[in-house]
Amino acid sequence: MTKQQLIDNIRRKRSFLCVGLDTDIAKIPQHLLDLDDPIFAFNRAIIESTAEYCIAYKPNLAFYESLGSRGIASLEKTLEYLKAYHPDQFVIADAKRGDVGNTAEMYARCFFEKMHFDAVTLAPYMGADSISPFLGYQGKWAILLALTSNRGASDFQLMRTAKGDRLFESVIKASMQWAGDDAIMFVAGATQAEMIADLRKIAPQHFLLVPGIGAQGGSLRQVVENGMNRDCGLIVNASRSIIYADRGPQFDAAASQAAAQIQSEMDEYLREWDL
Amino acid sequence: MTKQQLIDNIRRKRSFLCVGLDTDIAKIPQHLLDLDDPIFAFNRAIIESTAEYCIAYKPNLAFYESLGSRGIASLEKTLEYLKAYHPDQFVIADAKRGDVGNTAEMYARCFFEKMHFDAVTLAPYMGADSISPFLGYQGKWAILLALTSNRGASDFQLMRTAKGDRLFESVIKASMQWAGDDAIMFVAGATQAEMIADLRKIAPQHFLLVPGIGAQGGSLRQVVENGMNRDCGLIVNASRSIIYADRGPQFDAAASQAAAQIQSEMDEYLREWDL
Repeated sequence: MTKQQLIDNIRRKRSFLCVGLDTDIAKIPQHLLDLDDPIFAFNRAIIESTAEYCIAYKPNLAFYESLGSRGIASLEKTLEYLKAYHPDQFVIADAKRGDVGNTAEMYARCFFEKMHFDAVTLAPYMGADSISPFLGYQGKWAILLALTSNRGASDFQLMRTAKGDRLFESVIKASMQWAGDDAIMFVAGATQAEMIADLRKIAPQHFLLVPGIGAQGGSLRQVVENGMNRDCGLIVNASRSIIYADRGPQFDAAASQAAAQIQSEMDEYLREWDL
Repeated sequence: MTKQQLIDNIRRKRSFLCVGLDTDIAKIPQHLLDLDDPIFAFNRAIIESTAEYCIAYKPNLAFYESLGSRGIASLEKTLEYLKAYHPDQFVIADAKRGDVGNTAEMYARCFFEKMHFDAVTLAPYMGADSISPFLGYQGKWAILLALTSNRGASDFQLMRTAKGDRLFESVIKASMQWAGDDAIMFVAGATQAEMIADLRKIAPQHFLLVPGIGAQGGSLRQVVENGMNRDCGLIVNASRSIIYADRGPQFDAAASQAAAQIQSEMDEYLREWDL
Protein backbone atom coordinates (compact mmCIF):
# COMPACT_ATOMS: atom_id res chain seq x y z
CA MET A 1 0.00 0.00 0.00
CA THR A 2 1.43 3.40 -0.96
CA LYS A 3 1.51 6.38 1.37
CA GLN A 4 -1.22 8.10 -0.66
CA GLN A 5 -3.51 5.06 -0.47
CA LEU A 6 -3.03 4.96 3.30
CA ILE A 7 -3.86 8.66 3.60
CA ASP A 8 -6.94 8.20 1.40
CA ASN A 9 -8.14 5.34 3.60
CA ILE A 10 -7.72 7.44 6.74
CA ARG A 11 -9.71 10.34 5.25
CA ARG A 12 -12.44 8.11 3.89
CA LYS A 13 -12.89 5.97 6.99
CA ARG A 14 -12.35 8.88 9.43
CA SER A 15 -9.98 6.71 11.43
CA PHE A 16 -6.30 6.07 12.00
CA LEU A 17 -6.89 3.11 14.27
CA CYS A 18 -4.91 -0.11 14.07
CA VAL A 19 -6.32 -3.14 15.88
CA GLY A 20 -3.62 -5.31 17.42
CA LEU A 21 -4.36 -8.99 16.89
CA ASP A 22 -2.45 -10.16 19.98
CA THR A 23 -4.57 -13.26 20.19
CA ASP A 24 -3.88 -15.34 23.29
CA ILE A 25 -5.47 -18.78 23.47
CA ALA A 26 -5.74 -18.35 27.25
CA LYS A 27 -7.86 -15.21 26.88
CA ILE A 28 -10.33 -15.94 24.09
CA PRO A 29 -13.93 -16.88 24.89
CA GLN A 30 -14.45 -20.43 26.12
CA HIS A 31 -17.01 -21.35 23.46
CA LEU A 32 -14.45 -20.93 20.67
CA LEU A 33 -12.11 -23.53 22.10
CA ASP A 34 -14.12 -26.42 20.67
CA LEU A 35 -13.65 -25.19 17.12
CA ASP A 36 -11.05 -26.54 14.75
CA ASP A 37 -8.93 -23.38 14.81
CA PRO A 38 -10.02 -21.16 17.72
CA ILE A 39 -7.34 -18.52 17.06
CA PHE A 40 -8.44 -17.99 13.47
CA ALA A 41 -12.14 -18.06 14.45
CA PHE A 42 -11.48 -15.36 17.04
CA ASN A 43 -9.47 -13.23 14.60
CA ARG A 44 -12.11 -13.50 11.91
CA ALA A 45 -14.85 -12.43 14.32
CA ILE A 46 -12.73 -9.52 15.58
CA ILE A 47 -11.95 -8.42 12.02
CA GLU A 48 -15.61 -8.60 10.94
CA SER A 49 -16.70 -6.54 13.95
CA THR A 50 -13.98 -3.86 13.78
CA ALA A 51 -13.02 -3.46 10.09
CA GLU A 52 -15.33 -0.53 9.51
CA TYR A 53 -13.67 1.44 12.33
CA CYS A 54 -10.00 0.84 11.59
CA ILE A 55 -7.52 1.13 8.74
CA ALA A 56 -4.94 -1.40 9.89
CA TYR A 57 -4.40 -4.70 11.70
CA LYS A 58 -1.24 -5.70 13.50
CA PRO A 59 -0.71 -9.29 14.60
CA ASN A 60 2.15 -9.53 17.10
CA LEU A 61 3.93 -12.62 15.84
CA ALA A 62 4.98 -13.74 19.33
CA PHE A 63 1.41 -14.80 20.06
CA TYR A 64 1.37 -17.11 17.04
CA GLU A 65 4.94 -18.38 17.28
CA SER A 66 4.40 -19.35 20.89
CA LEU A 67 1.89 -21.97 19.67
CA GLY A 68 4.39 -23.50 17.25
CA SER A 69 3.44 -24.67 13.77
CA ARG A 70 -0.27 -24.65 14.69
CA GLY A 71 -0.09 -20.96 15.62
CA ILE A 72 1.69 -20.05 12.40
CA ALA A 73 -1.03 -21.85 10.45
CA SER A 74 -3.67 -19.70 12.23
CA LEU A 75 -1.71 -16.58 11.31
CA GLU A 76 -1.45 -17.66 7.67
CA LYS A 77 -5.23 -18.18 7.53
CA THR A 78 -5.82 -14.78 9.12
CA LEU A 79 -3.66 -13.11 6.47
CA GLU A 80 -5.38 -14.93 3.64
CA TYR A 81 -8.72 -13.88 5.07
CA LEU A 82 -7.67 -10.22 5.31
CA LYS A 83 -6.31 -10.25 1.78
CA ALA A 84 -9.49 -11.82 0.37
CA TYR A 85 -12.14 -9.86 2.28
CA HIS A 86 -10.43 -6.67 3.48
CA PRO A 87 -7.77 -5.78 0.92
CA ASP A 88 -7.93 -2.10 1.92
CA GLN A 89 -6.56 -2.83 5.39
CA PHE A 90 -2.88 -2.06 6.05
CA VAL A 91 -1.47 -5.21 7.64
CA ILE A 92 1.58 -4.97 9.88
CA ALA A 93 3.75 -7.90 11.02
CA ASP A 94 4.74 -6.87 14.52
CA ALA A 95 7.86 -8.98 14.41
CA LYS A 96 10.59 -6.66 15.74
CA ARG A 97 13.15 -8.49 13.66
CA GLY A 98 16.71 -7.40 13.03
CA ASP A 99 19.28 -9.73 11.52
CA VAL A 100 22.23 -9.67 9.10
CA GLY A 101 21.92 -9.24 5.36
CA ASN A 102 21.04 -12.66 3.94
CA THR A 103 18.78 -13.52 6.87
CA ALA A 104 17.07 -10.15 6.60
CA GLU A 105 16.47 -10.85 2.91
CA MET A 106 14.83 -14.12 3.86
CA TYR A 107 12.57 -12.37 6.37
CA ALA A 108 11.64 -9.74 3.80
CA ARG A 109 10.62 -12.38 1.28
CA CYS A 110 8.71 -14.25 3.98
CA PHE A 111 6.71 -11.26 5.23
CA PHE A 112 6.21 -9.37 1.95
CA GLU A 113 5.98 -12.08 -0.71
CA LYS A 114 4.80 -15.20 1.06
CA MET A 115 2.55 -13.73 3.75
CA HIS A 116 1.54 -10.49 1.96
CA PHE A 117 2.09 -8.17 4.90
CA ASP A 118 2.27 -4.47 4.01
CA ALA A 119 4.78 -3.66 6.71
CA VAL A 120 7.06 -5.20 9.32
CA THR A 121 8.43 -3.77 12.56
CA LEU A 122 12.23 -3.91 12.82
CA ALA A 123 14.78 -3.36 15.59
CA PRO A 124 17.58 -1.05 14.38
CA TYR A 125 20.45 -2.23 16.62
CA MET A 126 22.28 -4.09 13.82
CA GLY A 127 22.29 -1.10 11.47
CA ALA A 128 21.72 -0.36 7.79
CA ASP A 129 22.32 -3.79 6.28
CA SER A 130 19.75 -5.35 8.62
CA ILE A 131 17.09 -2.90 7.36
CA SER A 132 17.89 -2.32 3.69
CA PRO A 133 16.59 -5.71 2.43
CA PHE A 134 13.10 -4.53 3.45
CA LEU A 135 13.35 -1.28 1.51
CA GLY A 136 13.31 -2.50 -2.07
CA TYR A 137 9.63 -3.44 -2.26
CA GLN A 138 7.22 -1.00 -3.90
CA GLY A 139 4.38 -0.17 -1.49
CA LYS A 140 5.89 -2.16 1.39
CA TRP A 141 7.18 -0.63 4.61
CA ALA A 142 9.87 -1.03 7.25
CA ILE A 143 8.67 0.31 10.61
CA LEU A 144 11.70 0.96 12.80
CA LEU A 145 11.58 0.84 16.56
CA ALA A 146 12.57 4.35 17.60
CA LEU A 147 10.89 5.22 20.88
CA THR A 148 9.01 2.30 22.39
CA SER A 149 6.18 2.41 24.93
CA ASN A 150 7.79 0.27 27.65
CA ARG A 151 9.73 1.31 30.72
CA GLY A 152 13.01 -0.12 29.36
CA ALA A 153 12.85 2.43 26.53
CA SER A 154 14.84 4.75 28.78
CA ASP A 155 17.74 2.27 29.16
CA PHE A 156 19.24 2.86 25.71
CA GLN A 157 16.81 4.79 23.47
CA LEU A 158 17.09 7.95 25.58
CA MET A 159 20.85 7.66 26.09
CA ARG A 160 22.73 10.78 24.95
CA THR A 161 25.30 10.26 22.26
CA ALA A 162 28.57 12.19 22.12
CA LYS A 163 26.97 14.36 19.41
CA GLY A 164 24.19 15.42 21.78
CA ASP A 165 21.31 13.45 20.26
CA ARG A 166 19.41 10.78 22.10
CA LEU A 167 19.87 7.33 20.56
CA PHE A 168 16.34 7.25 19.10
CA GLU A 169 17.06 10.54 17.34
CA SER A 170 20.29 9.10 15.90
CA VAL A 171 18.36 6.07 14.67
CA ILE A 172 15.83 8.30 12.90
CA LYS A 173 18.45 10.55 11.34
CA ALA A 174 20.56 7.61 10.13
CA SER A 175 17.57 5.78 8.66
CA MET A 176 16.56 8.86 6.69
CA GLN A 177 19.73 8.28 4.66
CA TRP A 178 18.54 4.77 3.77
CA ALA A 179 15.08 5.53 2.32
CA GLY A 180 12.32 8.11 2.33
CA ASP A 181 8.96 8.51 4.04
CA ASP A 182 7.36 6.30 1.39
CA ALA A 183 9.20 3.22 2.71
CA ILE A 184 10.01 3.84 6.37
CA MET A 185 7.81 4.57 9.39
CA PHE A 186 8.81 4.78 13.05
CA VAL A 187 7.39 3.26 16.21
CA ALA A 188 6.76 5.97 18.81
CA GLY A 189 5.03 4.92 22.02
CA ALA A 190 1.96 6.83 23.20
CA THR A 191 3.39 6.73 26.71
CA GLN A 192 6.17 9.06 25.48
CA ALA A 193 3.82 11.67 24.01
CA GLU A 194 5.94 14.71 24.83
CA MET A 195 8.93 13.16 23.05
CA ILE A 196 6.83 12.56 19.94
CA ALA A 197 7.06 16.33 19.42
CA ASP A 198 10.87 16.09 19.42
CA LEU A 199 10.68 13.23 16.97
CA ARG A 200 8.42 15.29 14.68
CA LYS A 201 11.08 18.00 14.47
CA ILE A 202 13.42 15.48 12.84
CA ALA A 203 10.85 13.56 10.79
CA PRO A 204 7.91 15.88 10.04
CA GLN A 205 6.60 13.83 7.11
CA HIS A 206 6.90 10.23 8.27
CA PHE A 207 4.06 8.09 9.44
CA LEU A 208 4.37 6.96 13.05
CA LEU A 209 3.03 3.70 14.42
CA VAL A 210 1.91 4.50 17.95
CA PRO A 211 1.27 1.68 20.42
CA GLY A 212 0.40 2.25 24.05
CA ILE A 213 -3.08 3.75 24.16
CA GLY A 214 -5.76 1.72 25.93
CA ALA A 215 -4.40 -0.92 28.30
CA GLN A 216 -0.95 0.73 28.43
CA GLY A 217 -2.44 4.09 29.43
CA GLY A 218 -1.20 6.56 26.80
CA SER A 219 -3.49 9.47 25.89
CA LEU A 220 -4.80 9.68 22.33
CA ARG A 221 -5.27 13.45 22.56
CA GLN A 222 -1.65 13.96 23.60
CA VAL A 223 -0.42 11.77 20.77
CA VAL A 224 -2.46 13.77 18.28
CA GLU A 225 -1.32 17.11 19.66
CA ASN A 226 2.32 16.12 19.49
CA GLY A 227 2.36 13.93 16.44
CA MET A 228 -0.35 14.69 13.88
CA ASN A 229 0.77 16.26 10.60
CA ARG A 230 -1.10 17.42 7.51
CA ASP A 231 -1.33 13.83 6.20
CA CYS A 232 -2.49 12.65 9.64
CA GLY A 233 0.87 10.83 9.88
CA LEU A 234 -0.34 8.56 12.66
CA ILE A 235 -1.42 4.94 12.92
CA VAL A 236 -2.50 4.41 16.52
CA ASN A 237 -2.71 0.87 17.80
CA ALA A 238 -4.94 -0.59 20.49
CA SER A 239 -4.93 -4.30 21.23
CA ARG A 240 -6.20 -5.62 24.54
CA SER A 241 -8.69 -2.78 25.15
CA ILE A 242 -10.49 -3.79 21.93
CA ILE A 243 -10.06 -7.51 21.43
CA TYR A 244 -10.63 -8.36 25.09
CA ALA A 245 -13.24 -5.66 25.77
CA ASP A 246 -15.50 -8.54 26.79
CA ARG A 247 -14.39 -12.13 27.17
CA GLY A 248 -17.77 -13.81 27.00
CA PRO A 249 -19.97 -14.82 24.06
CA GLN A 250 -20.58 -11.14 23.15
CA PHE A 251 -16.87 -10.46 22.65
CA ASP A 252 -17.32 -9.36 19.05
CA ALA A 253 -20.05 -6.82 19.80
CA ALA A 254 -17.93 -5.45 22.64
CA ALA A 255 -14.88 -5.20 20.38
CA SER A 256 -16.97 -3.41 17.79
CA GLN A 257 -18.17 -0.91 20.37
CA ALA A 258 -14.65 -0.30 21.74
CA ALA A 259 -13.27 0.28 18.24
CA ALA A 260 -16.21 2.54 17.29
CA GLN A 261 -15.59 4.69 20.34
CA ILE A 262 -11.94 5.27 19.45
CA GLN A 263 -12.88 5.90 15.81
CA SER A 264 -15.36 8.55 16.82
CA GLU A 265 -12.70 10.32 18.91
CA MET A 266 -10.31 10.08 15.96
CA ASP A 267 -12.90 11.58 13.63
CA GLU A 268 -13.07 14.63 15.89
CA TYR A 269 -9.30 15.09 15.82
CA LEU A 270 -9.21 14.71 12.05
CA ARG A 271 -11.81 17.45 11.74
CA GLU A 272 -9.93 19.68 14.18
CA TRP A 273 -6.87 19.26 11.98
CA ASP A 274 -8.94 19.90 8.79
CA LEU A 275 -8.44 16.40 7.48
CA MET B 1 22.52 -26.21 31.02
CA THR B 2 24.57 -24.53 33.74
CA LYS B 3 27.82 -22.69 33.11
CA GLN B 4 29.81 -25.49 34.77
CA GLN B 5 28.18 -28.16 32.59
CA LEU B 6 29.03 -26.15 29.50
CA ILE B 7 32.66 -25.77 30.61
CA ASP B 8 32.84 -29.51 31.36
CA ASN B 9 31.54 -30.32 27.88
CA ILE B 10 34.12 -28.04 26.28
CA ARG B 11 36.99 -29.66 28.22
CA ARG B 12 35.78 -33.18 27.57
CA LYS B 13 35.06 -32.77 23.86
CA ARG B 14 38.07 -30.49 23.24
CA SER B 15 35.82 -28.15 21.30
CA PHE B 16 33.96 -24.88 21.63
CA LEU B 17 32.33 -25.17 18.23
CA CYS B 18 28.68 -24.37 17.57
CA VAL B 19 27.19 -25.58 14.30
CA GLY B 20 24.69 -23.12 12.84
CA LEU B 21 21.65 -24.93 11.45
CA ASP B 22 20.81 -22.24 8.88
CA THR B 23 19.07 -24.77 6.72
CA ASP B 24 17.92 -23.36 3.40
CA ILE B 25 15.66 -25.54 1.27
CA ALA B 26 17.30 -24.01 -1.84
CA LYS B 27 20.75 -25.19 -0.80
CA ILE B 28 20.30 -28.73 0.53
CA PRO B 29 21.21 -31.72 -1.63
CA GLN B 30 18.75 -32.54 -4.38
CA HIS B 31 18.20 -36.15 -3.31
CA LEU B 32 16.65 -35.05 0.01
CA LEU B 33 13.88 -33.08 -1.65
CA ASP B 34 11.79 -36.18 -2.31
CA LEU B 35 11.59 -36.99 1.38
CA ASP B 36 8.65 -36.13 3.58
CA ASP B 37 10.51 -33.47 5.54
CA PRO B 38 13.75 -32.57 3.72
CA ILE B 39 14.73 -29.88 6.25
CA PHE B 40 14.55 -32.26 9.18
CA ALA B 41 16.30 -35.03 7.23
CA PHE B 42 19.14 -32.64 6.41
CA ASN B 43 19.42 -31.43 10.01
CA ARG B 44 19.45 -34.96 11.40
CA ALA B 45 22.22 -35.99 9.00
CA ILE B 46 24.25 -32.87 9.84
CA ILE B 47 23.79 -33.46 13.56
CA GLU B 48 24.81 -37.12 13.31
CA SER B 49 27.93 -36.25 11.35
CA THR B 50 29.08 -33.28 13.48
CA ALA B 51 27.92 -33.97 17.06
CA GLU B 52 31.22 -35.46 18.17
CA TYR B 53 33.08 -32.29 17.14
CA CYS B 54 30.84 -29.60 18.58
CA ILE B 55 29.22 -28.62 21.86
CA ALA B 56 26.31 -26.55 20.54
CA TYR B 57 23.80 -26.15 17.73
CA LYS B 58 22.20 -22.89 16.69
CA PRO B 59 19.21 -22.86 14.34
CA ASN B 60 18.61 -19.37 12.98
CA LEU B 61 14.82 -19.17 13.22
CA ALA B 62 14.48 -17.03 10.11
CA PHE B 63 15.26 -20.05 7.94
CA TYR B 64 12.37 -22.01 9.48
CA GLU B 65 9.89 -19.14 9.78
CA SER B 66 10.36 -18.29 6.12
CA LEU B 67 8.75 -21.65 5.28
CA GLY B 68 5.68 -20.95 7.39
CA SER B 69 4.04 -23.59 9.56
CA ARG B 70 5.83 -26.38 7.67
CA GLY B 71 9.22 -24.88 8.55
CA ILE B 72 8.32 -24.52 12.22
CA ALA B 73 7.29 -28.18 12.26
CA SER B 74 10.75 -29.12 10.90
CA LEU B 75 12.36 -27.02 13.64
CA GLU B 76 10.23 -28.68 16.33
CA LYS B 77 11.27 -32.12 15.09
CA THR B 78 14.94 -31.07 15.06
CA LEU B 79 14.69 -29.94 18.68
CA GLU B 80 12.97 -33.12 19.78
CA TYR B 81 15.67 -35.11 18.03
CA LEU B 82 18.45 -33.16 19.75
CA LYS B 83 16.81 -33.54 23.13
CA ALA B 84 16.33 -37.29 22.68
CA TYR B 85 19.67 -38.25 21.15
CA HIS B 86 22.09 -35.44 22.04
CA PRO B 87 20.99 -34.03 25.39
CA ASP B 88 24.54 -32.78 26.11
CA GLN B 89 24.40 -30.27 23.26
CA PHE B 90 23.74 -26.61 24.14
CA VAL B 91 20.95 -25.51 21.82
CA ILE B 92 20.58 -21.85 20.93
CA ALA B 93 17.53 -20.23 19.33
CA ASP B 94 19.06 -17.58 17.10
CA ALA B 95 15.92 -15.48 17.22
CA LYS B 96 17.23 -11.95 17.90
CA ARG B 97 13.96 -11.11 19.63
CA GLY B 98 13.24 -8.04 21.70
CA ASP B 99 9.73 -7.08 22.73
CA VAL B 100 7.86 -5.58 25.69
CA GLY B 101 7.24 -7.39 28.97
CA ASN B 102 4.21 -9.63 28.41
CA THR B 103 5.28 -10.52 24.86
CA ALA B 104 8.81 -11.24 26.06
CA GLU B 105 7.34 -13.56 28.70
CA MET B 106 5.48 -15.39 25.98
CA TYR B 107 8.66 -15.80 23.94
CA ALA B 108 10.55 -17.03 27.00
CA ARG B 109 7.91 -19.70 27.67
CA CYS B 110 7.90 -20.65 23.99
CA PHE B 111 11.68 -21.06 23.65
CA PHE B 112 12.50 -22.43 27.11
CA GLU B 113 9.45 -24.48 28.10
CA LYS B 114 7.79 -25.52 24.90
CA MET B 115 10.79 -25.92 22.59
CA HIS B 116 13.46 -26.73 25.23
CA PHE B 117 16.12 -24.40 23.91
CA ASP B 118 18.96 -23.69 26.34
CA ALA B 119 19.45 -20.13 25.15
CA VAL B 120 17.98 -17.42 22.94
CA THR B 121 19.62 -14.46 21.22
CA LEU B 122 18.01 -11.11 22.07
CA ALA B 123 18.28 -7.55 20.73
CA PRO B 124 18.77 -5.08 23.59
CA TYR B 125 17.26 -1.92 22.05
CA MET B 126 14.05 -2.04 24.16
CA GLY B 127 15.94 -2.27 27.47
CA ALA B 128 15.69 -4.19 30.73
CA ASP B 129 12.04 -5.22 30.69
CA SER B 130 12.45 -6.81 27.26
CA ILE B 131 15.26 -9.03 28.59
CA SER B 132 14.33 -9.79 32.20
CA PRO B 133 11.56 -12.33 31.40
CA PHE B 134 14.31 -14.58 30.00
CA LEU B 135 16.43 -14.38 33.15
CA GLY B 136 14.30 -16.29 35.65
CA TYR B 137 14.95 -19.79 34.29
CA GLN B 138 17.54 -21.96 36.04
CA GLY B 139 20.14 -23.14 33.51
CA LYS B 140 18.69 -21.09 30.63
CA TRP B 141 20.44 -18.18 28.97
CA ALA B 142 19.79 -14.82 27.34
CA ILE B 143 22.45 -14.05 24.74
CA LEU B 144 22.43 -10.31 24.07
CA LEU B 145 23.50 -8.80 20.78
CA ALA B 146 26.42 -6.60 21.74
CA LEU B 147 28.85 -6.39 18.83
CA THR B 148 27.56 -8.10 15.71
CA SER B 149 29.57 -9.39 12.75
CA ASN B 150 27.89 -7.39 9.99
CA ARG B 151 28.91 -4.10 8.43
CA GLY B 152 25.92 -2.25 9.93
CA ALA B 153 27.34 -2.95 13.40
CA SER B 154 29.19 0.35 13.09
CA ASP B 155 25.99 2.38 12.55
CA PHE B 156 24.86 2.30 16.20
CA GLN B 157 26.84 -0.26 18.21
CA LEU B 158 30.08 1.71 17.89
CA MET B 159 28.46 5.09 18.45
CA ARG B 160 30.03 7.02 21.33
CA THR B 161 27.72 7.94 24.17
CA ALA B 162 28.01 11.18 26.12
CA LYS B 163 29.72 9.21 28.88
CA GLY B 164 32.48 8.10 26.49
CA ASP B 165 31.50 4.45 26.07
CA ARG B 166 30.53 2.93 22.77
CA LEU B 167 26.90 1.76 22.70
CA PHE B 168 27.84 -1.95 22.85
CA GLU B 169 29.85 -1.24 26.00
CA SER B 170 26.86 0.55 27.55
CA VAL B 171 24.68 -2.44 26.70
CA ILE B 172 27.09 -4.83 28.41
CA LYS B 173 27.49 -2.65 31.51
CA ALA B 174 23.73 -2.13 31.87
CA SER B 175 22.93 -5.82 31.43
CA MET B 176 25.42 -6.75 34.15
CA GLN B 177 23.00 -5.05 36.56
CA TRP B 178 20.19 -7.37 35.43
CA ALA B 179 21.83 -10.78 35.97
CA GLY B 180 25.18 -12.50 36.26
CA ASP B 181 27.41 -14.55 33.99
CA ASP B 182 25.36 -17.66 34.79
CA ALA B 183 22.35 -16.28 32.87
CA ILE B 184 23.67 -13.82 30.27
CA MET B 185 26.11 -14.22 27.37
CA PHE B 186 26.98 -11.71 24.66
CA VAL B 187 27.21 -11.96 20.89
CA ALA B 188 30.57 -10.68 19.69
CA GLY B 189 31.35 -11.02 15.98
CA ALA B 190 34.60 -12.67 14.90
CA THR B 191 34.98 -9.92 12.31
CA GLN B 192 35.48 -7.47 15.21
CA ALA B 193 38.26 -9.46 16.90
CA GLU B 194 40.26 -6.49 18.16
CA MET B 195 37.16 -5.09 19.89
CA ILE B 196 36.56 -8.41 21.65
CA ALA B 197 39.56 -7.46 23.79
CA ASP B 198 37.79 -4.23 24.82
CA LEU B 199 34.65 -6.21 25.59
CA ARG B 200 36.68 -8.63 27.75
CA LYS B 201 37.86 -5.72 29.92
CA ILE B 202 34.25 -5.07 30.89
CA ALA B 203 33.04 -8.67 31.03
CA PRO B 204 36.00 -10.93 31.81
CA GLN B 205 33.88 -13.88 33.01
CA HIS B 206 31.01 -14.04 30.53
CA PHE B 207 30.69 -16.54 27.77
CA LEU B 208 30.68 -14.99 24.30
CA LEU B 209 28.83 -16.39 21.32
CA VAL B 210 31.04 -15.61 18.33
CA PRO B 211 29.60 -15.82 14.82
CA GLY B 212 31.53 -14.83 11.73
CA ILE B 213 34.30 -17.39 11.24
CA GLY B 214 34.20 -19.45 8.06
CA ALA B 215 32.06 -17.91 5.30
CA GLN B 216 32.12 -14.46 6.93
CA GLY B 217 35.92 -14.43 7.10
CA GLY B 218 36.75 -13.90 10.79
CA SER B 219 39.91 -15.53 12.16
CA LEU B 220 39.57 -18.15 14.88
CA ARG B 221 43.06 -17.49 16.19
CA GLN B 222 42.35 -13.77 16.61
CA VAL B 223 39.09 -14.52 18.42
CA VAL B 224 40.90 -16.84 20.80
CA GLU B 225 43.73 -14.40 21.44
CA ASN B 226 41.33 -11.59 22.24
CA GLY B 227 38.51 -13.46 23.88
CA MET B 228 39.50 -16.71 25.58
CA ASN B 229 39.40 -16.77 29.39
CA ARG B 230 40.23 -19.43 31.97
CA ASP B 231 36.83 -21.12 31.43
CA CYS B 232 37.34 -20.92 27.66
CA GLY B 233 34.49 -18.39 27.64
CA LEU B 234 33.84 -18.81 23.93
CA ILE B 235 31.26 -20.55 21.81
CA VAL B 236 32.33 -20.06 18.21
CA ASN B 237 29.75 -20.60 15.50
CA ALA B 238 30.22 -21.71 11.91
CA SER B 239 27.24 -22.34 9.67
CA ARG B 240 27.62 -22.33 5.90
CA SER B 241 31.27 -23.48 5.88
CA ILE B 242 30.17 -26.70 7.63
CA ILE B 243 26.64 -27.49 6.55
CA TYR B 244 27.24 -26.62 2.91
CA ALA B 245 30.85 -27.86 2.76
CA ASP B 246 29.62 -30.10 -0.05
CA ARG B 247 26.19 -29.89 -1.60
CA GLY B 248 26.07 -33.33 -3.23
CA PRO B 249 25.20 -36.76 -1.84
CA GLN B 250 28.34 -36.75 0.38
CA PHE B 251 27.26 -33.59 2.21
CA ASP B 252 27.31 -35.27 5.61
CA ALA B 253 30.83 -36.65 5.26
CA ALA B 254 32.02 -33.23 4.08
CA ALA B 255 30.28 -31.51 7.03
CA SER B 256 31.90 -33.98 9.39
CA GLN B 257 35.33 -33.25 7.94
CA ALA B 258 34.82 -29.47 8.08
CA ALA B 259 33.72 -29.67 11.72
CA ALA B 260 36.57 -32.03 12.64
CA GLN B 261 39.09 -29.62 11.19
CA ILE B 262 37.82 -26.71 13.29
CA GLN B 263 37.64 -28.93 16.36
CA SER B 264 41.25 -29.96 15.93
CA GLU B 265 42.33 -26.30 15.73
CA MET B 266 40.23 -25.58 18.84
CA ASP B 267 41.89 -28.46 20.69
CA GLU B 268 45.27 -26.83 20.07
CA TYR B 269 44.11 -23.48 21.44
CA LEU B 270 42.58 -25.13 24.50
CA ARG B 271 45.93 -26.80 25.20
CA GLU B 272 47.82 -23.54 24.67
CA TRP B 273 45.51 -21.98 27.26
CA ASP B 274 45.95 -24.98 29.62
CA LEU B 275 42.32 -26.04 29.36
